[in-house]
Amino acid sequence: MNKSFKFPVVILANGSFPSNPLPLQQLESAGTVICTDGAVNSLAQLKLIPHVIIGDMDSIDPRYEFNGIKIQDKNPENSDLEKALDWVEMNDIKEVTLLGATGFREDMTLANLYILFDYYGKVSIKLITDHYTVTCHKGKQSFTSFPGEDVSLFTQEVSTLVSTTALKYQLEDSAIVPPQKGISNQSMGSTFSVESSGPILVFRGHTQED
Amino acid sequence: MNKSFKFPVVILANGSFPSNPLPLQQLESAGTVICTDGAVNSLAQLKLIPHVIIGDMDSIDPRYEFNGIKIQDKNPENSDLEKALDWVEMNDIKEVTLLGATGFREDMTLANLYILFDYYGKVSIKLITDHYTVTCHKGKQSFTSFPGEDVSLFTQEVSTLVSTTALKYQLEDSAIVPPQKGISNQSMGSTFSVESSGPILVFRGHTQED
Repeated sequence: MNKSFKFPVVILANGSFPSNPLPLQQLESAGTVICTDGAVNSLAQLKLIPHVIIGDMDSIDPRYEFNGIKIQDKNPENSDLEKALDWVEMNDIKEVTLLGATGFREDMTLANLYILFDYYGKVSIKLITDHYTVTCHKGKQSFTSFPGEDVSLFTQEVSTLVSTTALKYQLEDSAIVPPQKGISNQSMGSTFSVESSGPILVFRGHTQED
Repeated sequence: MNKSFKFPVVILANGSFPSNPLPLQQLESAGTVICTDGAVNSLAQLKLIPHVIIGDMDSIDPRYEFNGIKIQDKNPENSDLEKALDWVEMNDIKEVTLLGATGFREDMTLANLYILFDYYGKVSIKLITDHYTVTCHKGKQSFTSFPGEDVSLFTQEVSTLVSTTALKYQLEDSAIVPPQKGISNQSMGSTFSVESSGPILVFRGHTQED
């Protein structure tokens, strides 16, 4: 990893700016903040300065002065977020926290959640929204939890088989169809596990919601 | 169709209540409004009364008085929205407009967009958000449009092949991978078409967004 970057590395995308204390705290305690293009405008309002800006640079307020690393990439084949993740991978950064990746446009929310499937195995991404921490896994994974924590599971392929422990609605080598079957589950205690034959998105709620 | 229901039929789900004039107008001009459980609380604030309420009825304000059709279903295997769509199908209603299906919880947004794939061929659903009208198609479909209209395409299966006419970024028997490739396209004129070998979600923007 380039010595000029400090951990933890946070990517701020151009969806809804976080309002929940948990993602806000991740932003404030970041060692390196990478902004995708227009996301820098929201950050400027908090008087925070990113270390890196990546995108086609069409959405940045022209009055914005910036002396950090600016990576302009006008390739229309991928999104600003994909450009940022490719850059992260190229710089051998193995773990990032992704904020501002959902909200506003539903097509971007859908695509950005699916990005976790695409970068699975290349970069470890923790996508944090105002409601959930979303991660992508394959094989067996255990999670620290609390009783009543909201848990939702979403597989990319219908053929993926999933087993769980310590969830309210248990799965045993089951396919998750229709999608709702994996939604609105709950943790039963201080830990739960998910084992999956293919990549699976695990949504963990920040606090209990009824 | 049961004679007591009037067209058009609108289902209001329990995501973000619409704020854009387009979905709000759909709600106000509905012949029949079906609310999923807690969505009725938002509707009551507008002094509108639903004709049907479907769900487990745990989220309705106990002070709420209702003399319409109330369908309580506590099956944990499917969501309130799926219960509502099953009921619609059972009552031989062929077309519905779906509002309030996105926003807040990202897992619900993802699952509710995927519901269009599940009910494709059973009920014709027009999902309208503050940003997009989302529909699911297979085969060739033409759309009335305007130059610069935002168009995003999202297939369920990677193997689905897509061709388009009159879009900025054309597809010719192409698979949409990675997901971003189908996002942020634009209509070039007063009509465009999408032909798809498998079910595809078509997002059409209400107005031009930069």
